[in-house]
Amino acid sequence: MKESPGVVDLLGVLAYAELSAFARMTEDAASLAPSLTDRAALSELAVAEYAHFRLLRDQLAELGADPEEAMSPFVAALDGWHAQTAPGDWLEALVKAYVGEGIALDFYREAARRLDPPLAKLVDVVLADEGRSQFAVERVRAALEADPVAAGRLALWARRLVGEALSQGQRVAAARPELARMLVPDDADDQAEISRMFARLTEEHGKRMTALGL
Amino acid sequence: MKESPGVVDLLGVLAYAELSAFARMTEDAASLAPSLTDRAALSELAVAEYAHFRLLRDQLAELGADPEEAMSPFVAALDGWHAQTAPGDWLEALVKAYVGEGIALDFYREAARRLDPPLAKLVDVVLADEGRSQFAVERVRAALEADPVAAGRLALWARRLVGEALSQGQRVAAARPELARMLVPDDADDQAEISRMFARLTEEHGKRMTALGL
Repeated sequence: MKESPGVVDLLGVLAYAELSAFARMTEDAASLAPSLTDRAALSELAVAEYAHFRLLRDQLAELGADPEEAMSPFVAALDGWHAQTAPGDWLEALVKAYVGEGIALDFYREAARRLDPPLAKLVDVVLADEGRSQFAVERVRAALEADPVAAGRLALWARRLVGEALSQGQRVAAARPELARMLVPDDADDQAEISRMFARLTEEHGKRMTALGL
Repeated sequence: MKESPGVVDLLGVLAYAELSAFARMTEDAASLAPSLTDRAALSELAVAEYAHFRLLRDQLAELGADPEEAMSPFVAALDGWHAQTAPGDWLEALVKAYVGEGIALDFYREAARRLDPPLAKLVDVVLADEGRSQFAVERVRAALEADPVAAGRLALWARRLVGEALSQGQRVAAARPELARMLVPDDADDQAEISRMFARLTEEHGKRMTALGL
């Protein structure tokens, strides 16, 4: 296998992120959606995540890596993230599907910037949202129009999602130095590079919060 | 809308059966699978159920029916079936995916025998298993070879799945006479027709139990 451990790590964490997001969104849809139509809409997002998982798993196998082994190191951190961010109601589930997944995808996108073109293209496909989460934006905006007071609570919730994502991200970076190096290469001017990356992440997060009206 | 209430009922119960099986299998996969590979295999079955749900929902809309309204009358009975048959471990989850889904699909197949050809064809597509559940058979057989004592417990479990399916089926039939009439038309020689139907259902169930080695 010619791929660096960082590449296998990246595909592995991404694969388990998709598999676990699939399960959690499906569960949130079944337990929190106020109607069967809403339940189907969030399930649709979940199924799209599963299709991404399938692509990544097959790519790992094609690289000669064992998908199970590649995903295993990230199970605890990602399960931890979901356990810490179990939505309490439908609006929290929607904000998580849009803001939480958004942050996670931005992180993976950063790491993928240094992949070889064919792999970078696969990751691009996996990370493309294709407007699927637009329904979450519409539902949250409509709910906030009906009940503007909910905005404060949802903004706090979004902040908690970001905090937990950073905390689990640091845990993963500390345990998997090769993966961390894909975000910040050794030869980079570390401090400046990290600052620019966080500026990009913050900007994208801000755009999502604005889209939600938060 | 020219379709009879029985047809909308059949597509509605089938649609919610697929949507709820999708959620429960996904949850069983996430909480009970002994490996990520197994988790993916059961999730794959779950996602196939979701694709069927999508076909049925779109067909209901095409007939001019509201999918939400068409599914609603069956939510309690199908949620009740899942609540009464929550698997306690991975083998029970596999037996449920194969035996439980199998019985349910046989029932729907019986009801679909009297549909107009285009609708009957759609239901056929939805009911086709395409060998997807074969992995469940292989896993259960391998487990029974390693631990033959488990057979008694799993045979009891399968009997409970059948019992609960019959009990929820009767509940649905009592509440939705048009749907019941699709299984047993008024003009049929009721007793003989019902006997033949149960003989078919029993035969198919027996084949599945044999396939599992139970």
